[in-house]
Parts: sequence; structure tokens; C-alpha cells
Amino acid sequence: MKKVCIVGASGFTGGELLRILLQHRGVEIVCATSRRFKGEYVYRVHPNLRGFTQLKFVEPSIDVALKADVVFLALPHGESVKWVPKLYESGVAVFDLSADFRLKDPNAYVEWYKWPQPHPYPDLLQKAVYGQPELHRDELVGAKLVAVPGCMATASILMLAPLAKFGLLSDTPPVVDAKIGSSGAGAEGSVVDLHSFRTYVVRPYEPVHHRHIAEIEQELTRLAGRKVRIAFTPHAVDIVRGIFTTGHVYVEKLPSETDMWRYYRALYGDSKFIRIVKDRLGISRYPNVKYVLGTNIVDLGFELDPRLNRVVTFAAIDNLVRGAAGQAVQAFNIAMGFPEDEGLRQIPIAPL
Amino acid sequence: MKKVCIVGASGFTGGELLRILLQHRGVEIVCATSRRFKGEYVYRVHPNLRGFTQLKFVEPSIDVALKADVVFLALPHGESVKWVPKLYESGVAVFDLSADFRLKDPNAYVEWYKWPQPHPYPDLLQKAVYGQPELHRDELVGAKLVAVPGCMATASILMLAPLAKFGLLSDTPPVVDAKIGSSGAGAEGSVVDLHSFRTYVVRPYEPVHHRHIAEIEQELTRLAGRKVRIAFTPHAVDIVRGIFTTGHVYVEKLPSETDMWRYYRALYGDSKFIRIVKDRLGISRYPNVKYVLGTNIVDLGFELDPRLNRVVTFAAIDNLVRGAAGQAVQAFNIAMGFPEDEGLRQIPIAPL
Amino acid sequence: MKKVCIVGASGFTGGELLRILLQHRGVEIVCATSRRFKGEYVYRVHPNLRGFTQLKFVEPSIDVALKADVVFLALPHGESVKWVPKLYESGVAVFDLSADFRLKDPNAYVEWYKWPQPHPYPDLLQKAVYGQPELHRDELVGAKLVAVPGCMATASILMLAPLAKFGLLSDTPPVVDAKIGSSGAGAEGSVVDLHSFRTYVVRPYEPVHHRHIAEIEQELTRLAGRKVRIAFTPHAVDIVRGIFTTGHVYVEKLPSETDMWRYYRALYGDSKFIRIVKDRLGISRYPNVKYVLGTNIVDLGFELDPRLNRVVTFAAIDNLVRGAAGQAVQAFNIAMGFPEDEGLRQIPIAPL
Amino acid sequence: MKKVCIVGASGFTGGELLRILLQHRGVEIVCATSRRFKGEYVYRVHPNLRGFTQLKFVEPSIDVALKADVVFLALPHGESVKWVPKLYESGVAVFDLSADFRLKDPNAYVEWYKWPQPHPYPDLLQKAVYGQPELHRDELVGAKLVAVPGCMATASILMLAPLAKFGLLSDTPPVVDAKIGSSGAGAEGSVVDLHSFRTYVVRPYEPVHHRHIAEIEQELTRLAGRKVRIAFTPHAVDIVRGIFTTGHVYVEKLPSETDMWRYYRALYGDSKFIRIVKDRLGISRYPNVKYVLGTNIVDLGFELDPRLNRVVTFAAIDNLVRGAAGQAVQAFNIAMGFPEDEGLRQIPIAPL
Repeated sequence: MKKVCIVGASGFTGGELLRILLQHRGVEIVCATSRRFKGEYVYRVHPNLRGFTQLKFVEPSIDVALKADVVFLALPHGESVKWVPKLYESGVAVFDLSADFRLKDPNAYVEWYKWPQPHPYPDLLQKAVYGQPELHRDELVGAKLVAVPGCMATASILMLAPLAKFGLLSDTPPVVDAKIGSSGAGAEGSVVDLHSFRTYVVRPYEPVHHRHIAEIEQELTRLAGRKVRIAFTPHAVDIVRGIFTTGHVYVEKLPSETDMWRYYRALYGDSKFIRIVKDRLGISRYPNVKYVLGTNIVDLGFELDPRLNRVVTFAAIDNLVRGAAGQAVQAFNIAMGFPEDEGLRQIPIAPL
Repeated sequence: MKKVCIVGASGFTGGELLRILLQHRGVEIVCATSRRFKGEYVYRVHPNLRGFTQLKFVEPSIDVALKADVVFLALPHGESVKWVPKLYESGVAVFDLSADFRLKDPNAYVEWYKWPQPHPYPDLLQKAVYGQPELHRDELVGAKLVAVPGCMATASILMLAPLAKFGLLSDTPPVVDAKIGSSGAGAEGSVVDLHSFRTYVVRPYEPVHHRHIAEIEQELTRLAGRKVRIAFTPHAVDIVRGIFTTGHVYVEKLPSETDMWRYYRALYGDSKFIRIVKDRLGISRYPNVKYVLGTNIVDLGFELDPRLNRVVTFAAIDNLVRGAAGQAVQAFNIAMGFPEDEGLRQIPIAPL
Repeated sequence: MKKVCIVGASGFTGGELLRILLQHRGVEIVCATSRRFKGEYVYRVHPNLRGFTQLKFVEPSIDVALKADVVFLALPHGESVKWVPKLYESGVAVFDLSADFRLKDPNAYVEWYKWPQPHPYPDLLQKAVYGQPELHRDELVGAKLVAVPGCMATASILMLAPLAKFGLLSDTPPVVDAKIGSSGAGAEGSVVDLHSFRTYVVRPYEPVHHRHIAEIEQELTRLAGRKVRIAFTPHAVDIVRGIFTTGHVYVEKLPSETDMWRYYRALYGDSKFIRIVKDRLGISRYPNVKYVLGTNIVDLGFELDPRLNRVVTFAAIDNLVRGAAGQAVQAFNIAMGFPEDEGLRQIPIAPL
Repeated sequence: MKKVCIVGASGFTGGELLRILLQHRGVEIVCATSRRFKGEYVYRVHPNLRGFTQLKFVEPSIDVALKADVVFLALPHGESVKWVPKLYESGVAVFDLSADFRLKDPNAYVEWYKWPQPHPYPDLLQKAVYGQPELHRDELVGAKLVAVPGCMATASILMLAPLAKFGLLSDTPPVVDAKIGSSGAGAEGSVVDLHSFRTYVVRPYEPVHHRHIAEIEQELTRLAGRKVRIAFTPHAVDIVRGIFTTGHVYVEKLPSETDMWRYYRALYGDSKFIRIVKDRLGISRYPNVKYVLGTNIVDLGFELDPRLNRVVTFAAIDNLVRGAAGQAVQAFNIAMGFPEDEGLRQIPIAPL
């Protein structure tokens, strides 16, 4: 039984960590912190949890966190870096859901996250495992510091990893056109996140310099064995949860459909959470955010465009589960030796 | 391990029965029937189930059903009545999700369901248990024929039962104003159920003679010990799942808030699925469909209107789970001696 | 050509006043005030107006407003009362969209709006015309101070007025169950108005003591010639615009359908904006918010419940147009001698 | 006063033609045809039009259409071709909203529309004007046969036309990633268009061979003066109306922002309907479908990606207005000498 503390538990990611871990048979949640809501019942901030826990939020502090075996940090970027070194030194296992330990290059934080200085803990950066379970499963075993990937990065990387690994990427950077729901903006949104403004929307944001580009390129470069660059443009669409990414990849030589299946299966054949959705029949023949909601599942698909030597790839995930809390628990399960899907076995609910 | 057959498994209710029973540790699904989709993989009709079952639909027939220990009938009204007698005689336990065995009065089917004749099996009507678990738990133990309540009836009855039982209902029939999502129309809708027509909608339907009135009045009359009538008007609103019912009840003498709590706790204090939501703090102080989605939970609440001697009551449920498949499985669990919440322990997912 | 100033022009109501008045052939908009956005282009706050006006917001002040012939006050409750006396004395015509001059009884502001004192200008209260055009058309001609009705009050009153006027209301207070979109909360919402929290919602709020009750009862009492009380409960539903009200009215003696048509036509037969929607055929046989969006139209309907001696009434409006800006312009048109529908002739857009 | 007949008036495009033309001061609608609804009031199929017209649908026939001066054909692909020759010969002006006269190459119909033979009227193909008003304004004057562009083609072409015309397109085909609402599927959808299935969706369809590619390439090739190819992938998103297209264009040499403004203004500076949305301030700095709803407006925008030599372009339109009925009326206005925006002056309604 692992004692777990969730730091930053009042946001959406924190709420999902609570929901998932309350259903995890190897975990005891010993604390959930929130500066703003300390002393308040957790279910008053996360009304879905009413009746499932009598936990109250506590003031966040290193001391509180040190009482746990494992700490999940669901803090804003730039905050986790203040917590990790001390926790790590004390031997507490840390699963950091911020970006603070995702990038291996300390200077990348200056470029992509506008930090005034390079990352202050370059050694820890190297020790941190990039917690994409399907691509770093071996490194995760026993890991003490895990940087849980970003939500849009997760969909983008898993979708393109087979192409990167099997040498399909050409010199033309793949275009990744992403669509994301409103929960990505968090539980303390600004005026444009109000229902009246966020409904009936299709609009781009940060169309040429989104932060997740850095980790997507880092991972795909690693897999491809050569520098990979990505043209990434996200769009807000009128859903709460979900990310859909479409990869438009110009290739030198178009693979066969059989090859494509082979590449995806080679990478993901043993994964409990990845479904290749490319069907000839039925009401859903490609990935669709509708059919992964509430779960850690990744639906991947593709189509070949022989007219233009283009491979089109698709990924659908739930941004709060597979894009954050669920993937963190999956990484935690691997690190701690639990079954990889403990707490994560839920079947998607549809229609929703 | 019970062998279960789901007859009429291609609709929304059938899909939810599959989803829930695939997570039930005491059940083996031995058949899922669909005339239209026979031979097809279940996941091609219910894409959320992809990867969770390789089951195929089979042609519906009594013979196929007789191989099971338990049959769930997810058929249209007027169809179940053709299946039940033979199954019942053969000793198969039947959970009928249609209305065909809900009303005790054989003549009521002529009035409310436009049958040309009274119900042909009045004896079976008497044997059938009205499967509202919180109100018929004892009768359900060992039951062989269960009529699973209607979706809007479930919310209405559970919301008003304490008032009926504790003598609060006056001669003025309670008004029940209901709001329901599009999944209530089923997976084969008509033109008004198309997304373009069903979005951005608030509109009434069957505003004075909805069929669920019959079973609501039957149950409340039983609880009150005198004839109760209900003014029931449902409205389509722009969600897929969910029912919200608001009861406006003029009472002779306004109860205190403490009394109200007492009445609700007396009836539901031991229920695993009922939450009384009436809070002074937090972001959700009354029931809300948002916080029961995907689960068998019933959120009940109330408010007192001393100005008008009115008690306002609220209920929020997921129409496909608590209003159909989930309640059927709950009744099945009681009937068969499983833990009442087996297969139904999921925490609601929010935000969605 | 009337010079018009819109005070409080950055909110939703202000934005709609701008949109409508930009299309009005008898109006020149001379100022649009916003404390928060002063100096900013109007289209940066109301992006739909981009290309239709180069107006900038100005600091709100009485002096600025006095340069206009007509002032529309789109201010919060309790603010308008600070502006009206001076504007009124100066001879500027005032259309006040707040509640500050709607209630004739000065003490009612203590009860319903929590003012510490009775209304400070009881004389002005008497002079103010309650600007429901269909019910106060004669008083509006030449009016200099108009209190534009509340959004939910508008739907409720218009729906029940025929019953009040023609003596159908019994001693049992009509139940008005309302459903409203998120734009009712305004452009500066709180956390529960965020898209993630406000989507997939059906929930009540202020279920027994909503402020609009006061004006609904005031108007219906006037029409009925005796004290009328209303049991009013609003619900948030998952749309941006729109109000739907359902009236459940127990009557002594059920009118015939012909009578009902006669009552509604007697009151509204000459109105350009009211449609009685009660059809035997077609895809929309009762009112529906979907078919009034963006317009000043009021769709009214009814159904008779002979089983319970109940008349069920329906109203659907766009809360920002007929519930605020559009009705204000309609009242302005009558007051100033413009065609009643000037600026308001738009046909509803569907499907949306 | 032009006598207009709308053939195929019961669908969404037909409904929008009715709505717009009822507000057009130079038009008398003399017939609206519908095989399915002949004899029925138009407002029973288009409930928004209730109160605005007493027109009834009539059986479609050439004879009926010949009584008009102008015929709008809102028929399925492959149907218009049966009507056009006879109407054209009789001197009736035809605005065809299907694809039947959009492509100049008769063989293209075999490839893109699966016709068994090349187009039977190659001469008429040459005479037909491709009715994109901003790019074919001169040809439209006095035109007797106009092929109104496809909805996604309209957004894609207008967004990329400046780049094509000013020589920015490289050998790498631009990627056009499109997002579209459910109304694009028409008023007689299939099961996947039901609200329950079409809500909460992000999914691709026809990801490599959508029919609109043909006309997009035709137009951009004409503008560029050399063969242009397009990688086009549309996605269904959870809105009713609206198309958003994102162009990812790799260029040889990145233009300056000033150049980009210059190119767009050169093409569209005099257009009444095109807004370039690229702002430094305000709540909407790029195009967004939310702010064009119900109108003929096209919002265009762009962003430069110096990291990858990529120009990202954006277009937002209402698919039923600018993507169909509105653009048809705009072309009709030019052809007939009406003000280009007659009937189309509506300001977008927001928030919706």
C-alpha cells in the first residue's frame, strides 16, 4: 500500500488523480493540497467525488508531502521545480505533471517557457524519466522522478512514433493539427473560457510556437535518430474533454497499408491502452474523441494518400486522463510494480 | 458465474448493459442479440467497447436466450411481452427493461400504451417485481421476473417517495417538470433527433400524457396509501445523457428542513447509490446531471418555499445507467445475491 | 435621427444594443461607455461587430450621457438608480435595463433586492413605465423613463398574461419552471460559468426566491385584478442563449382549446413579434428556444390537461434580445414613434 | 423585382435561401419545391420561418421553374445536371448550388464524383461561372449559369488565393485541415448524424479524397498560373454550423507580415464581406466560427512560422450562408445588378 500525496489537488488534473487513485487498490491517499481551498472538503470542489471521500484539502508544504511515499505534483509550470529537488533527495518518488522536468536541454526552458535562466537542476533533468509509458516502459521501472508528458504532446508523439522509428519521416516537417477541449485551460480560466465565449468555437491559438513542440521534437528526434521538427497548430473546439491530433506527413516513399499496421503493432502490440482504429465497417472507422472519454485509452489511426505521398495519422485521447492524470498513474504503476492498468480499467462511456 | 443473454443489444440500453456487465465479476455474457446487426462485431455498433470484447451479435430467438441463466430484455414496449412467458416458465430469470410488466393493472396498458386489449398475462403482472431497488429491495431477492422502471419514472419516484411515504402530499397533484437528453430517444432516432435539429433545443413533448405517469402514480400511490396523481411534463434539452426532474409540491403544512433530511435518510440512508445534495458551500449545492454521468448514482435534493407552502424537490440521474441498464444490474445483483454495487462502482467523471 | 448613448456597453446586453441599433435607421450611436475598456475599440470586446463600427468605448459619466437624446442603461442592479434621476430631470429619455425602476412598491427593493432602505425615488417609480410593449403599448408612447422587464419575467408574464386577464388563475399559485442559458450570467462570470463547469449541466438555482418573481407577480396581479402569486424555479441548461418557461396552472374549470386561442389572440393578435406555436403537423409543434434565437420573437404555446384540470403554457425567447436589448429597442420604437419593429426585423436563423 | 424559384427548398440550403430571399428587396419568391413535402406549409419544415411566409411547397418540375426569372437549384449532386440545360436554353438564370457545373474538366466528374461517364454537357461547363464572387466578380455580371462553390472549397480557396496569386506556393502541397459542423450533412442525415452520435465528436472523414479538392485545385491552379495540389482533410466537430480551415503552407521564402497584409488587401480590400482578423488585442485575435454565424462574412487570418518557413492561414465561414445560400445570393446580386450585399447585411449574432 503506497501512501500518496497529491499536491495541487483542486484543479482538473488533481481531481482526476483523486478519482483514479480512489479506485486504485494499492494506494492510500494521505493528502490532497490546495492553498485556496485548505480546510474544505474535497467534494465541494470536485462534486463528482461526493460520497466517495471525506478527505479535506490541506495547505501545501514540503513537510506534508514528505510523509508520503509518492507525490504527484499537479502544479503550474515553474512551481514544480521548487518542490522536486527536496522531495527527490528525501527519497520520495515524484510524478511531476508540469513541464518542469520534461526537456533534457536546460536551455530549452529559456526558449519555450520564457525562463530567465537555463534550468537550475540540469542533473535532475537527466535523471528524470519522460513518462510516456509505451515508449519508456523499461526506464520507468523503479523510477523516482518522472516527468509526465504534456497532453497534446502525448497524442502527437504516440501518433507519429511509428513513423519516426521506422524511418518514414522526410525532410518536410510533419504538420500536426490539433483540436482540444476547454478543460485544457484548467479550472481557473479567463474570460474567453466562460461558457458563453467558449461555446460554438473553432479557433486557433499559439499557432506557431506552442510549448509542447519542444517535447514532441525531443521524443521524435530520439526515436528517429535524427533531428525532427514539427509544424504544430492547436485549435480550441467546443468540447470539454478530448484532444484529437491529425498528422499530415509527406514521405519519400509511401508505405503499404500492411507496413503501416506492422509499424504500429511493433510499437504498441503489447499495450493495454492503445487501440488501432482503422476499420472498413461500423459507425466509427477512425479515431474519435467520443470513444475514449474518461479513460486512459489512446485511439490511433492512419490513412494513405497516394496522390500526394502523404501519410495522414490520427490520435484521440482524453486530455485529463491519458493527457495527464491517467498517464501519470500508468507510469506510477510501472514504476511501483503494480499492474499497468490498476485503477485504469474503466471502459469508455458512450454515447456522452 | 451467471450466464447472461442480452436481447436487443444494439441500442443504447443494450450497449450500456454490455459495458456494465463486461466489468461485472459474476457474469459471463453468452449472447447479445440484434436482428439488424447479426454476425457483426459488437464493437462496430458500440465503438467504445472496441478492445474489450470480441463478441458478435446473434439473431434473437427464444432458443438462444434459453441457454442463459439470466436474460436482460432491452426491447421496445410491446415486444418483451412476447418473450417473457416462455422464458419465465423455463426458469430463466428475466430482467425486462421495457414497460411491459411495470403496471399492475392490466387495463392500464390500454390507456397508457394504446394496447388494443388489456395485458394478456395478468398473473405474470402480479408476479413481476417493480425493480426500483431502493423501494423493493426485499421483493427483489430471488426474483425471477423484474420489470425495470422507466428512466423518468425512476427520477420522479425516488425524488417524491419520501414525501409520499411520510404523508406530505396534499390534494394538489405534485408538478413534475422533467428535462432529458437525446439518448432517451434511442439509437434509431427520427429527423428531429438529428444533431442539427436536436442541438440548441429546449422544448416540451407529450406535455400532459407521458406514459411514465402511470408507473409514477402506481408507486407513489402505494407509498402514500392513497391515490396520488402527478402533473408530469418532460422537456428535451441539449445534452445526450441525463434526466433532471423538479418536483413542485404544495403541502398542507411545510415540514422543517430537519424533517426533510429525516424523511430522505429514513428511506435512503443505507443506499450505496443515493446522495442527498443540499449544501451550503461548494460549487454544486443542488443535484446536477453533470455529476452523475456514467453512473448508477441518484442525486436528490430539496428546498422549502415558505412563501407558498411549497416543497421543491430535485433528482438527477444518468438515464441510460440509473434510468435503465445500471438499475437493471442493481436489481439483478440483489436478486442473485451479488453485492448490490457489483459492476457499478464507477465514480462519476467530471468535468465532461 | 435620435442620438443614443449606451451606458454599460461592454456586457452582453450592451453588445446586443449595439448590434441592434447599428441596424436601426433612426438612430445614431453617439457613445458606448465602459469603465474597464475605455479607449478600446468596441469590436475588440464584441468581435462580431468587427467591420460594422469603428466606435471606441468611453469612460461612463453623466455628462457624456447628457449629450444624447436617449440613454440606454445596461448597468447592474443598484447602479442605474444613481443615473436615472439626473438624466430624467435633464429631459433625456431613459431606457433602463436594470431592475431599479421595475417595481412600483418602494419596499419591494428591500425584500427582493436586499436594499438596506426602500427605493429612494418613489415618485420616479410611479412615473416609470414597465416596458413590456405588448402589455403597456399605450403608456409607452412618449415615455421618458422606461423600466425594461427582466428576461425570465418577460417569458413568464407573456405566457401567463392571457390566463390572468381572462380570469383563469385559481387560488393555487401557478408553477413556472424556467430553463435558461449561460449568457444570463453576463460576460463576467464566476467559476461555475466556465465552459468546463457550465457544459452538460441541468441544475436549479435560487429555486424559491428568484428576484424576477416580484415583477411577475406585480404584472399578473395588475392583469388579474387580484393578488397573484407564482411558484418560480429557474434551471441552468446547456445553451448560451434562450429562456424557456413552462407554466403549470391548475384552473377551476378547464377552458376549451378554442377559448385558449381566443384569449391569446385577444392579447397578442396585433403583435408583430408574438407567434402562437401549437401545431398538429411539422417538426416543431410547441415553442422551442431553437427557433427564436437572435430575434425579438416570443413563441407562446399551451396544452390542456383534462385529467388534472391543468393548463400547461410555454414561452420561448432569446434572453439577450427579447429578454433585454431587443425589448428595450421595441419599447424605444414605440416611445419615439418609430415602426415598432425597426431594427428588429431579423428572421430567426436555424438550424444553429 | 425578380421572380425566383427555389428547387429543393426543404433542405438546409433551401431553408437558408428562403430566409435570405424573404429579406431581399428585389425578389419575389414564386415557388419553393419539395417532392417530399409538397402541399405543406414551408414553416412546418423550417420552423424559424413561421410568421414570415405562408408559402407552401410545390412538386418540383421544369414547368414550374420556367415561370420564374431566376432559379436556385438546391439539389443533390447529379440531380442539377438534369435541370440545367433546359432552364438555360429557356433563358432562365440558374444558380446551381450542387457541384454539377463547378469543374471545367468533364472527366473530373468521373474521378471525383464517380460518374460513369464524363460530364454530358461540356459546353455548358465552359459557360458556367464559378460563383466565388470575390474572385469572379466581373464574369458574374449578367451571368446566366452560375456554379456556386462548395462550402469547404469556399473557405479553402479564399484563404489560399492571395498566396496562390502572389507566387508564394512552393512545390510542397499546402495542407488544408478543415473542421465542419453537422449541418454540412444536410437535413436527412444517417445514424451517425443523430445528436447522440454526433455530439462530443472530433473525427476525420474522407481524409485523403474529399470531393472539394477538385474545385480547390482548379481555382488555385488558375490563380497561381501553375498546377497546384492540396492535401485536404476534413473533420467533424461538435457544432451545427460553421467551417474552419487551417492552411499549413511551406514556402520557399517567408514573406513579411506587411507583405501578407498587402496580398490579402490586394485581393479583398474592396469586399464587403471579408474581414482580415489578425489583432494584437481583444478577445478574438484570429478567425473563429463563433463570430460569423448566420452571415455571409468570411474571416481570414494568418500567422508566420519563421522556424519552419511556414505560413499558417485561417478561414472561418458559416457553411450554410457563405458556404451555400448566402454566396449564391451574393453571386445573384452581382449577376442581376443589385447591391452586392442586398439581403445579406445582417451583423453576426454573438454570443451564441
